[in-house]
Amino acid sequence: MSDLTKLRSRIGPPDAGAEVEARRRLDQLTKPPGSLGRLEELAVRLAGITGTCPPPLRNPVIFTLAGDHGVVAQGVSAYPQIVTAQMVENFLRGGAAVNVLARHAAARIVVADLGVASPLPRHAALRDLKVAPGTADMTVGPAMTRAQAIQAIEAGIGLVEVERARGADLVGTGEMGIGNTTAASALVAALTGATAESVTGPGTGVDAAGRRRKVEAIRRALTRNAPDPADALDTLAKVGGFEIAGLVGVILAGAAYRLPVVLDGFIAGAAALVAARLEPTARTALIAAHRSAEPGHTRVLEALGLEPYLELGMRLGEGTGAALCIDLARAAVSVLTEMATFKSAGVTDRADPAGAS
Amino acid sequence: MSDLTKLRSRIGPPDAGAEVEARRRLDQLTKPPGSLGRLEELAVRLAGITGTCPPPLRNPVIFTLAGDHGVVAQGVSAYPQIVTAQMVENFLRGGAAVNVLARHAAARIVVADLGVASPLPRHAALRDLKVAPGTADMTVGPAMTRAQAIQAIEAGIGLVEVERARGADLVGTGEMGIGNTTAASALVAALTGATAESVTGPGTGVDAAGRRRKVEAIRRALTRNAPDPADALDTLAKVGGFEIAGLVGVILAGAAYRLPVVLDGFIAGAAALVAARLEPTARTALIAAHRSAEPGHTRVLEALGLEPYLELGMRLGEGTGAALCIDLARAAVSVLTEMATFKSAGVTDRADPAGAS
Repeated sequence: MSDLTKLRSRIGPPDAGAEVEARRRLDQLTKPPGSLGRLEELAVRLAGITGTCPPPLRNPVIFTLAGDHGVVAQGVSAYPQIVTAQMVENFLRGGAAVNVLARHAAARIVVADLGVASPLPRHAALRDLKVAPGTADMTVGPAMTRAQAIQAIEAGIGLVEVERARGADLVGTGEMGIGNTTAASALVAALTGATAESVTGPGTGVDAAGRRRKVEAIRRALTRNAPDPADALDTLAKVGGFEIAGLVGVILAGAAYRLPVVLDGFIAGAAALVAARLEPTARTALIAAHRSAEPGHTRVLEALGLEPYLELGMRLGEGTGAALCIDLARAAVSVLTEMATFKSAGVTDRADPAGAS
Repeated sequence: MSDLTKLRSRIGPPDAGAEVEARRRLDQLTKPPGSLGRLEELAVRLAGITGTCPPPLRNPVIFTLAGDHGVVAQGVSAYPQIVTAQMVENFLRGGAAVNVLARHAAARIVVADLGVASPLPRHAALRDLKVAPGTADMTVGPAMTRAQAIQAIEAGIGLVEVERARGADLVGTGEMGIGNTTAASALVAALTGATAESVTGPGTGVDAAGRRRKVEAIRRALTRNAPDPADALDTLAKVGGFEIAGLVGVILAGAAYRLPVVLDGFIAGAAALVAARLEPTARTALIAAHRSAEPGHTRVLEALGLEPYLELGMRLGEGTGAALCIDLARAAVSVLTEMATFKSAGVTDRADPAGAS
């Protein structure tokens, strides 16, 4: 745990000076103050997180982590487990939704196997960080050992450190794992005290009976494992998943290295909840990309105190919402760097009705 | 009025076949059906409007129309009238927010003078369609004559026809005009029956006293001119503006030529309300980019039956929200054209649990 402990000690609050500088700059630009709404707020947050104004945004990386879940034995997903591995291959070939939307946002994707159950072919672009071939079924015992959870977190940290050395300046989160909305719902219920019923949705699209099986599986897992909500690592290990634990590491590393962390949807939110329990200051590096259609996501956003930028009813995961928000972040930074000021454009500011100042 | 009448007769409903084809394609892609939420809905709408699947989106054009308003004599804006002309010059130099966000969305901007009060230098990129140097003060008489309103509408139609001949495949709306939130609020109040109070906001940022002056000016204008809400042209002429009338033409032309019309915010919404009164079917070509912070915009969206894609608290105009939505539309089209299908990627669909079909 030394890597994790060292990393946590690096996490600090946003840079107030860079935020003030961004606000000052925004108010000099040829537009009424604040008239770009949350786009301005996003620019200010990026400046604060990175400690730089204008914030750099040349090399965003989406980390799409994959893992399987023993709980699929309880019939909680509309798709068979093999789809996790098949989708990893789809990511590597560039045909998945996250590939398309990351290209749109000019973001790179790093695909990592944290715990896929099925064998995966070797591929130059696939990071093999498999902790085990899928978690155990959390309805009959802990999904992971504590040591496995820490191993997955540290693997996530390592991924960010490698990309940071290559120039990454923003971290997006993504994931793939058949069954992982069930694990995420269990985590959110355990950490927030919400009922399983209230934080469980259709995921990839199970019917009403499937959703009842999810709720039941989560209840059994929580009863069986009795995770300690005051011990986020314990909770993560007992009802989480390898890719979720990996994302906890990605999020903590992003926060530690002052890289904005653009959270995707519900699974990313559950990981962020764990990260924020491990190190509350990490919360200040988080940007909620969108509000997922999964009902538990709103509870997560409330717990984290985050307001999402997009509300498009998406519920795909992979990093698709993060990609759209990275594109929006790029627009926000462009406003800061490319717009004319009242002075440079010779436009009369309202503070100076006599003429351009 | 023959141009306008001819154009109105061309406006038809969306192409149901292209919509079905888009939905069918979306459901074959490697993602749970519907899991990209409103991004999928946007792709379907673009297919229906253009009658083509996948819809073309290579040459979007934002029409930023400028005009001045006699009602500024009533102290309704935080900025002096000269700013309209100064901002037109800023658009032509590429330094305004809409320039930055249009570049981000790879959209072109067409800047046109429909009725700017101050003299503007000649510029190759500026379309001079000035009807008059600013409207008359609507608190003392009609803002425009009916003939002027028609002239401005037909100028907007002409702008779209020229760009369509150059390959434009999507129309975005934008505007600039000190005082134009007052005109837009008056139009919305007149056409929907809402009170001036309920549809009037701070615009570019007037204080409480300024907002009271706006509400009073609108009330006086409506009393003085008694626009006939059953006659949208009469209402437009009496309390609208040159750039708003121009946008009515842009919107009707977009609808007539089956080009998706991405509406910016409140001013565009007021123009769309007029367009939809002149030709109700035009409504089906409209895409509401975002919900403006102006309170009257929600009333407009309700009246048009449109749900905006973005809610970022923006209230700048110029076409800035349209630009962000055009970028989102591009992402939606990329999903349709670039994603792998279950079959092509060898991913098991849930309808076929035995293996990839």
